[in-house]
Amino acid sequence: MKNIKKILCPGFKAAGIASGLKKNGEKDLGLIFSTVPSNVAGMFTRNRVQGAHILLDRERIKSGLCQAVVVNSGNANCCTGKQGIHNAKAMAGYTASSLGISENHVLVASTGVIGEPLPIEKIKEATPGLVKALASEGFYDLAEAIMTTDTVPKIVSTQGNIEGKTFTITGIAKGSGMICPDMATMLCFICTDIKASSAFLKKALCAATKRSFNRITIDSDMSTNDTIIIMANGVSKAVVQSSTQNNSFQKALDEVMISLAKKLIKDGEGSTKLVEIAVKGALSDTDAYKIAGTVANSNLVKTAFFGEDANWGRIVAAAGRADVPINPDKIDIFFDDIMMVKNGLGCGKAAEAKATKVLKKSEFTVLIDLHQGKGYSSVFTCDFSIDYVKINADYRS
Amino acid sequence: MKNIKKILCPGFKAAGIASGLKKNGEKDLGLIFSTVPSNVAGMFTRNRVQGAHILLDRERIKSGLCQAVVVNSGNANCCTGKQGIHNAKAMAGYTASSLGISENHVLVASTGVIGEPLPIEKIKEATPGLVKALASEGFYDLAEAIMTTDTVPKIVSTQGNIEGKTFTITGIAKGSGMICPDMATMLCFICTDIKASSAFLKKALCAATKRSFNRITIDSDMSTNDTIIIMANGVSKAVVQSSTQNNSFQKALDEVMISLAKKLIKDGEGSTKLVEIAVKGALSDTDAYKIAGTVANSNLVKTAFFGEDANWGRIVAAAGRADVPINPDKIDIFFDDIMMVKNGLGCGKAAEAKATKVLKKSEFTVLIDLHQGKGYSSVFTCDFSIDYVKINADYRS
Repeated sequence: MKNIKKILCPGFKAAGIASGLKKNGEKDLGLIFSTVPSNVAGMFTRNRVQGAHILLDRERIKSGLCQAVVVNSGNANCCTGKQGIHNAKAMAGYTASSLGISENHVLVASTGVIGEPLPIEKIKEATPGLVKALASEGFYDLAEAIMTTDTVPKIVSTQGNIEGKTFTITGIAKGSGMICPDMATMLCFICTDIKASSAFLKKALCAATKRSFNRITIDSDMSTNDTIIIMANGVSKAVVQSSTQNNSFQKALDEVMISLAKKLIKDGEGSTKLVEIAVKGALSDTDAYKIAGTVANSNLVKTAFFGEDANWGRIVAAAGRADVPINPDKIDIFFDDIMMVKNGLGCGKAAEAKATKVLKKSEFTVLIDLHQGKGYSSVFTCDFSIDYVKINADYRS
Repeated sequence: MKNIKKILCPGFKAAGIASGLKKNGEKDLGLIFSTVPSNVAGMFTRNRVQGAHILLDRERIKSGLCQAVVVNSGNANCCTGKQGIHNAKAMAGYTASSLGISENHVLVASTGVIGEPLPIEKIKEATPGLVKALASEGFYDLAEAIMTTDTVPKIVSTQGNIEGKTFTITGIAKGSGMICPDMATMLCFICTDIKASSAFLKKALCAATKRSFNRITIDSDMSTNDTIIIMANGVSKAVVQSSTQNNSFQKALDEVMISLAKKLIKDGEGSTKLVEIAVKGALSDTDAYKIAGTVANSNLVKTAFFGEDANWGRIVAAAGRADVPINPDKIDIFFDDIMMVKNGLGCGKAAEAKATKVLKKSEFTVLIDLHQGKGYSSVFTCDFSIDYVKINADYRS
């Protein structure tokens, strides 16, 4: 296990400091800086209500170039009108000035409470100190600075090899509520020293998102500020152009993003269990995904997981409302390797006793076999606990 | 206020007794009996997984005639295969024999845990006693016998007048979880002494359902056993045929069903507040309904209600993911008569302080005005409390 405080990515520096946005005085302002302009790609929320930074980033990212990302927690700068856009631009401007780079190459991200004006003066004052704090090993501080209800910072790094040249991918993410598999959920920043065009990066990012952040759910709510940005500065001299080279890069990117996605679920608000809902034997992968997602989002299924109750009837009931044709009399359900349901009928008390043991684990898989076709998909979810309600009832107080 | 223990409906008898299905020894078997065969109509869950009684009822209801409905709680008789169908038929059979009526005129309903075999022997033994218990004032016992996690029985009765003849509508319902506005949620039985064809009843029932049970949500989960049955025995001599006469009947039916629907929400699992989410100014009523439903189902909105936190950002964020075109900069939001958001921006601390007072009430309305068109809809929901999780984590234990 790597020391996550030592994680770096060649040619990148990062920082995280406290600027006073969070009432408790914790880190709330972060910065990623590439020593040379990077090619960049991003994905943003599909919510019709979007944070001010997203409106800015969508425009700037079209150039395909980025040298810095400045990010704050404690305030989403969303539903803040024209002043919000103005503040997002100002935030980028202060960063560009302090770094001495083009403002057009600075992207912005915000996360936190919706609907309150961004205290831009605090950010202005803090920016020179933020830039001064930049360090190769600053990713851990950055990961801390973007936390909201997260209880642990989330950083993953891996290396790969293309034609004898080693490349690095380092990703950090935050998010533990308002998480839904509809989109590239929450905030996630990926730095890599590979050389790749922004068009290529976009394609790789979409593919990896489909396999990672679009397969997790905590509470079915979609955020207004979801943002994933990938920056590639090319300092490794490893170049990815062809699809063969891509296999190596894509594999590494998938690994980083799936690992981050799982960390999000494990740290989900009130989460005590990481559960994979896998569906096989569907008529199509899309059908399988719909069913897995519906089961993974069911409050009744999730509270049963919390109660360590092998209440498979709720799983079948959720599968039945996924708006996908299924034959209830053909369904098999497994909790890890324990068969709980065969041909739509419960396998009895002995099976239930074994399944209850599986439910006591902190990680397990529920496999639903529809026996209808070859469609497969899986979604990661967590249990739904008393703490989820406590955390969200008291969030702003 | 009527004494709900005295509620009746001319020409009908009802009963509720304990048959041993519920571990705690409470009432779990109920019966509705019409002294003459009634015209009948019903609506059932759209879940692809359906309780055995629904497969039976869908077939039998085609005749348009029904004289008795036998219903049990404590077991859903769902995911129970051929034996389940067999048991549902047997349950109707025992009732028909004891009453001395045609088995084809007996409908069945079950509610409770999914996936466990129905203890049909207990029902067989209890049926003669159930029939013996039939009484004009038996609706209260019946309402108690169909409760699962409900904490109070739900009965509503009203009277109307058509051409000088008084008619009665008495409805009972159960349900506090697995409730979603997609369908004629939970179990609901409506008795009336009006004379009307089954085709007419079906039309009136659909219309009333749209205005009542399809406008409530507790936890977004759709049940496998949702059933609404309306029986009209004609003993009042009031006849409804034309649309003018229908106005009077439909109004009374709407009143009964909306009242029952609200009772369900108030008694929702862990519910402490009844909240109406109203949306106006949408491009269409359908758009308004989609947004109201998405907000009403948002766990983040509902936990904020529980926390009495006027976190309007979550309302806007939920509205934004309803897959309906909206302009965030035009949205106004009111908590009862307090304007919290104007043109997408918060109205400040003073408004928030007033809104927080509204949130402390046990019933209030959130109005979202989109200022885009004339579409309107509203959905009733409840808050999402710690008790919801407790109830559902421990449901089967």
